[in-house]
Amino acid sequence: MSEKNNCTNGRAKRPFLIGVAGGTASGKSSVCERIVEALGQQKLDSRQRKVTVISMDSFYQDVVTNEAAPGSYNFDHPDAVDEKMMKKTLSELRAGQPVRVPVYDKVKNSRTDFTQIYPTDVVLIEGILVFYFKEILDMLDMKLFVDTDADTRLSRRVMRDVQERGRDLDKVLVQYVKFVKPAFEEFCLPTKKYADVIIPRGAENSVAINLIVHHIRDILNGGIKTEYQNGKAKLIDGLSTPMHTSTLIPSGPVGRKASESGGRPH
Amino acid sequence: MSEKNNCTNGRAKRPFLIGVAGGTASGKSSVCERIVEALGQQKLDSRQRKVTVISMDSFYQDVVTNEAAPGSYNFDHPDAVDEKMMKKTLSELRAGQPVRVPVYDKVKNSRTDFTQIYPTDVVLIEGILVFYFKEILDMLDMKLFVDTDADTRLSRRVMRDVQERGRDLDKVLVQYVKFVKPAFEEFCLPTKKYADVIIPRGAENSVAINLIVHHIRDILNGGIKTEYQNGKAKLIDGLSTPMHTSTLIPSGPVGRKASESGGRPH
Amino acid sequence: MSEKNNCTNGRAKRPFLIGVAGGTASGKSSVCERIVEALGQQKLDSRQRKVTVISMDSFYQDVVTNEAAPGSYNFDHPDAVDEKMMKKTLSELRAGQPVRVPVYDKVKNSRTDFTQIYPTDVVLIEGILVFYFKEILDMLDMKLFVDTDADTRLSRRVMRDVQERGRDLDKVLVQYVKFVKPAFEEFCLPTKKYADVIIPRGAENSVAINLIVHHIRDILNGGIKTEYQNGKAKLIDGLSTPMHTSTLIPSGPVGRKASESGGRPH
Amino acid sequence: MSEKNNCTNGRAKRPFLIGVAGGTASGKSSVCERIVEALGQQKLDSRQRKVTVISMDSFYQDVVTNEAAPGSYNFDHPDAVDEKMMKKTLSELRAGQPVRVPVYDKVKNSRTDFTQIYPTDVVLIEGILVFYFKEILDMLDMKLFVDTDADTRLSRRVMRDVQERGRDLDKVLVQYVKFVKPAFEEFCLPTKKYADVIIPRGAENSVAINLIVHHIRDILNGGIKTEYQNGKAKLIDGLSTPMHTSTLIPSGPVGRKASESGGRPH
Repeated sequence: MSEKNNCTNGRAKRPFLIGVAGGTASGKSSVCERIVEALGQQKLDSRQRKVTVISMDSFYQDVVTNEAAPGSYNFDHPDAVDEKMMKKTLSELRAGQPVRVPVYDKVKNSRTDFTQIYPTDVVLIEGILVFYFKEILDMLDMKLFVDTDADTRLSRRVMRDVQERGRDLDKVLVQYVKFVKPAFEEFCLPTKKYADVIIPRGAENSVAINLIVHHIRDILNGGIKTEYQNGKAKLIDGLSTPMHTSTLIPSGPVGRKASESGGRPH
Repeated sequence: MSEKNNCTNGRAKRPFLIGVAGGTASGKSSVCERIVEALGQQKLDSRQRKVTVISMDSFYQDVVTNEAAPGSYNFDHPDAVDEKMMKKTLSELRAGQPVRVPVYDKVKNSRTDFTQIYPTDVVLIEGILVFYFKEILDMLDMKLFVDTDADTRLSRRVMRDVQERGRDLDKVLVQYVKFVKPAFEEFCLPTKKYADVIIPRGAENSVAINLIVHHIRDILNGGIKTEYQNGKAKLIDGLSTPMHTSTLIPSGPVGRKASESGGRPH
Repeated sequence: MSEKNNCTNGRAKRPFLIGVAGGTASGKSSVCERIVEALGQQKLDSRQRKVTVISMDSFYQDVVTNEAAPGSYNFDHPDAVDEKMMKKTLSELRAGQPVRVPVYDKVKNSRTDFTQIYPTDVVLIEGILVFYFKEILDMLDMKLFVDTDADTRLSRRVMRDVQERGRDLDKVLVQYVKFVKPAFEEFCLPTKKYADVIIPRGAENSVAINLIVHHIRDILNGGIKTEYQNGKAKLIDGLSTPMHTSTLIPSGPVGRKASESGGRPH
Repeated sequence: MSEKNNCTNGRAKRPFLIGVAGGTASGKSSVCERIVEALGQQKLDSRQRKVTVISMDSFYQDVVTNEAAPGSYNFDHPDAVDEKMMKKTLSELRAGQPVRVPVYDKVKNSRTDFTQIYPTDVVLIEGILVFYFKEILDMLDMKLFVDTDADTRLSRRVMRDVQERGRDLDKVLVQYVKFVKPAFEEFCLPTKKYADVIIPRGAENSVAINLIVHHIRDILNGGIKTEYQNGKAKLIDGLSTPMHTSTLIPSGPVGRKASESGGRPH
């Protein structure tokens, strides 16, 4: 990796990539916001930032929706995501290159613009299906799953969609039951097993957010930099000795590893 | 459907097909045994029986296992099942035809023989993946899921394999962790949603077994016969009016239906 | 048991008592309705009926609610139920005696009247906490748990309360998050383990409802009468031999039994 | 905070208390070991250490077990723990005082000795029921729940007890089914909701352990010291603004809070 050249502010960067997955209204993006705020990054412009948040929603496919059947498009299905573009964007960011991230208009269901994103020390990518696409999963240095009960999430979503966005209650519920819930259970929930850390409840969980904030601050301060240089989180100090000595089954691939080759997801 | 008296005792039969799914050692086959015993069918020879139990295990693929790597074959994966043969067998039974069901030797990992099975009024088909194969699922008139906690099941399996079958404890555990558990979570558990009735705990659940026994007895007595004649369980009497009037979302496919088209399973 | 005296229409009755538990909007009462309809009982007057449905809601305490704090009373907590009266009522019914069941007015939060209920062959008692009170649990001959996902239930409840009952969306959601959900998780969900049969999805589950309907019809026809005469469901025929022979741990109380003595619930 | 120098190395300490809960064989103590190793604390003697690990098992009641009925004592029940002594010990440690922690002999089922523990910057307290006792829960600055599937845990426990400790397989399984599992479900699992961070899989989860290690290192370096001085974790910088702005229900106690007053646990 040729360092020192392709980055904006003279520092060679291989951003530390944190994936934040979870169901609708679990608090994924609020958790990311809290982290950015705590690090004093929210007021900075794109070139000054050290931490960037990207939403999976930016990578929705351009859709020509059926005018005759509004509400018939399933935004919660993996097919709604431009996996290729999402993968390419994250790869380039990881290689220290600036990228153009689409701005997706949820009313028009199409990309209306692009934003320039510069590589930063830390990149948070959040979305329902962030752990679903195998190659994207493999890029993540840390995997957080925001775990909020299904009924709590529905309750939040209803409030948000009906109160804040003025949508019809019954349409919100039909969409939830018809698309959001089945897709969550089929495509998102099975990826929870890839999480390194599970954050219960979401944005109100100050202790967990604080923990992540400190970790990122250590990365920004250079304290953790080299440990991740090969794209895999490595344990430090005493932790660099094998961690597996106390696990049950010493030989061969175990547990979730075995299932990875079996079918979808992965 | 040509019914032309191809059955043993003069009656044309379109057997009532009950699928019994659940994880390893959940009690699937014990539940089936209890049912057969309660109906006084266990002592009868194959031609006299009115109720037949078939195990999915009969349809395991002939396997040339790697002698160098015993324990490396995954019997819990759908690929281990000869789906085509299982489907054909059940179809023919449903059409009132006698069938030849393989006898699978779990030591040799191959089919060693076949048994002749005659069509009966009721056929129970039990196995981990009985709800997994879409076309087989669609043949089932009633779907039972025997739901026993994962640790209770492991506890039973360990006892059975170690105490009764004399296998090595660590091999039993390695196989469980490496194959049985991941396959259950990936292929069996997601099919629980197709169950009509969930039977907790398994064979010790006398009340649930009794309920099934009575239902089968009613079928044998001719009381329920015609209701299922088109291959779908229909509600009787007052129940023949639509059942969906009180459900939330009246229009369109809802809940699990929507997810069926989405991906695997189905 | 001296028969023939204390009952209304000349038949001695020890009703078969079916408990139907499950979370809010799981479909408990709809399941009961479907059963009654299928049996052609819904048009009959109270003295002609052979099947009665009683709701736990009838036994809510008379409440003097705080006018200053509407929505502050927790109807989902066991303390809201007049356990003593509920127990007494079911005991008397089981003894073949007619009972007076309160009519509870959910607007006034008080009992406004009583209905006379005559003992019938089968009594269904439905409610969130029907398995919670130990002495009531022990009276039940069959325990059904209607198991519907939490978000599906919330979705139904919101529709019902907002669309049908004209309540405010945010009040409905606050009450759910503040009272209904925590009480369900603390008092109802842990009683699911007592269920004999779990009915997924609720009223739309025709196959499960049909199964119960046939069982009740058998009871009404006298076919199952004597089996339950000692207040416990007993297995018939071959099933009368012990069912526990195939369970793992032969000695001592196992599984859920052990936990019953431990704490709440029970 | 005047702590009057009652500590070994001249610094007044109010240790940062981390609770580590989870089921049997979930990896609680292995996670603690990894953390201590990673911080280079494992070789230090008690007076030099900056991080201490205490096990709930130290606080088991002195038991006169029934010789006639070995295996009849329930070590997984809250009654087996000397809650009072555990609470007193943690309180004193938090006040910066050295404490005497019992050494519990699991063969003799009695306290055989005491160890002197000096207050350190960070104290980890691990055990099945660490979140169960309300007053102990309230002392914890950070609550970690090690979340490992029940069957994986049983598999580990069986290996450990049979292979390493030479116990009989059937006794291990009977104890698990009779005591360990029911107590876990009744007393431990319901406390998972109090967790700030859920660590899936246990000791093999290097990324999560690394995250905790960095946090502790920041505490040891003085970077996080003051934030916790009032016994509650506070968010720093931008995070010190209220975190609750984006949660659904602004007024009153919500979610798990509401249930805390309801019954056990808490």
